[in-house]
This record gives sequence, structure tokens and C-alpha cells, in this order.
Amino acid sequence: MEKDWDIIEVLRHARHDWLNKIQLIKGNLALNKVDRAKEIIDEIVVEAQQEAKLSNLHLPEFASLLFTYNWENHMFQLEYDVLEGYKCDRLDDSRLAEWTKSFFSLLNRAIQPFNDNHLSVSIEPQKQGVRFFFDFSGIIIHKKDVESFFEDFPSDLVLSLQSFTTQELSFDVLMRYGEENTEE
Amino acid sequence: MEKDWDIIEVLRHARHDWLNKIQLIKGNLALNKVDRAKEIIDEIVVEAQQEAKLSNLHLPEFASLLFTYNWENHMFQLEYDVLEGYKCDRLDDSRLAEWTKSFFSLLNRAIQPFNDNHLSVSIEPQKQGVRFFFDFSGIIIHKKDVESFFEDFPSDLVLSLQSFTTQELSFDVLMRYGEENTEE
Repeated sequence: MEKDWDIIEVLRHARHDWLNKIQLIKGNLALNKVDRAKEIIDEIVVEAQQEAKLSNLHLPEFASLLFTYNWENHMFQLEYDVLEGYKCDRLDDSRLAEWTKSFFSLLNRAIQPFNDNHLSVSIEPQKQGVRFFFDFSGIIIHKKDVESFFEDFPSDLVLSLQSFTTQELSFDVLMRYGEENTEE
Repeated sequence: MEKDWDIIEVLRHARHDWLNKIQLIKGNLALNKVDRAKEIIDEIVVEAQQEAKLSNLHLPEFASLLFTYNWENHMFQLEYDVLEGYKCDRLDDSRLAEWTKSFFSLLNRAIQPFNDNHLSVSIEPQKQGVRFFFDFSGIIIHKKDVESFFEDFPSDLVLSLQSFTTQELSFDVLMRYGEENTEE
């Protein structure tokens, strides 16, 4: 992470996020849109379940990066979801967090600021490792930087590029589990 | 604090607390009690404002203690509120957190476990220092321990005992601001 978060700050940001959700429910109830309020509550619960799933992957550095990313000022909005599957075990958390940071940092430099930029990350624990699906929508203004990033892609990660235009970038990264697991 | 909280854990507990509140709203909406749901939302907002006020007192150790206390297993439930008043400045945060911990620890030892024990803390920044009003309701089974605690009360805190029975204990503690402030 780019900064150390203390309890007060973490709770401040979390409170801010939750209060926004509560205000959304409140606003709909004030307009007598009870069904919409119920839908929002269901969405909130699903979102919280995703957060819980990410917490349970035993990837504290990577999870903390994702949890706190939207609290800092960046050029894109981050979303994530965790798919059901195998138990995520013996993945190199620091290495994963380090690479993810380097990709987020590249993206921040390569995209148009103050545009409606979104990055969605799907995390799918598989048998041999964890598959991460990154799906960006927005405007990429420095395509060359992104090309270089993919050309110098680290050899410990398996890349599968799916789409790369000025308005969309989507790719898969597979990170294999560590030694101990493959010996089983 | 008795343990180091990391981001994942802090968010896990905060999420749990917030989801309980959301479920309360959801439950009332399911029963078509829209007015009660609105009341609960208002209560949640007030509670969040108290949390924000406590965060803004610049007493990180003391605030973190209060924020995380109910997340650990203790013999009483803690509540707090922060009254409007003077700016809280140059209070010895570590000393305050240390004394508060010693009082909480005494209370845990002195009260009847698994009873409906509650401690409410009101924090009122005043001109010469901060006044803390502690109001316990529950069952005190070791009165002697509490008596000793008050007999050996630290001289840097101004105690004013208001009520002390087996079912209630309430007292005021004034902690004065540090040197720099009194020199002004």
C-alpha cells in the first residue's frame, strides 16, 4: 500500500462508504420507493459478501490493496468479485500485491484523467493457481505504455490478453500456487 | 489495545456491525414497518456521527480502544457519546488510553459475567481539560476491588464519584490538558 492505514482512518473511510449506502436507502424510502430500497439492501449484502470472500482468501496484502484503493485518489474506480471454486492456498501474497500495484500504477499513468474509468477484477481460485480477470473500460491515452507493460510481462505469471483497444482492455493472469502445493 | 488490528480484521468487524444494522432495516421493511425503518436509519446516522466526533478528537489510542472494545470478548457492552464543547487539544492520549484500559480491566474482573452489563462513556471537552463521565449499569460482585481502585486513584486525574451501588457505578474524571495549553 502507498500509505499506512490506522484504525481511525480505516473506520473513517468504511463509515463514509456505509453511510453512502444508508443514505441511498433513506432517499428511496423518503420517495416511498420501498421496493427499490429493498433491492439496494440486497445489493449491499451481496457486495459485503464479496468483501468477506476476499478477506477469506488469506491474501492480506492483496486484499488490503483492493479494499483501500478507492479511498485514495486514482484515475479509475476499482470493483472486484470473488468466484467460488477451489481453496486459494499457498499463493505468494506479496508478489501478487506487488504486481497488482505495478499494473494499477501503469493504468493510472496510461488513462485519461477525470474520465469515467473503471477496472473490474474477478478473482477465481482454480486447481493449479488463481486466475485474475482484469476488465478495464474507459479511455487509454498512452497505448504504448500498456504495450510495453505486456511485452515485459513477468515470467512467473501466465498472461492471456483478450481485448486491447483505446476504450477497453481485458486480460487474464494466472498465478500458480507455490512449491509445497504442487508437490502434493 | 490488547491486540494489533490489521485492515482485514478492522473491516471484517466493521462490516459485521454495519450488516447487522442493514438487516434491522431489511427486517422492518419486510414487515412493512417503513416508519420504524426510517427511525432506525436516523439512529444509525446519529451513531455514525458520534463515531466521527470521537475520531476527530485527536486521541487515536483512546478512540481505537473504544472503537474496538466490543469486538473483543468482555463482560460488559460499551457505548459512548461525544458532547459538543471546546476543542480537545494537548490531552495526553497514551496516558488516557492507559488509565481507561486499567478501568475497563477492573470492571471486567469486578462484575458478574453473562449479565446484562453496560458501560456508557460521555466525553465532554471543556476549557481546562476533558471531562469523562462513566456510567455503569449491571451487577458488581466484587465491590472491594472497585473501592480499592478508587482509593488508589491516580493524582493526575480529578475524580468525582457520583453513585456506587452493586447495580450502578457512575463517576466523573477530569483530565487536564498538557503544559503548553495552560501557559496560553
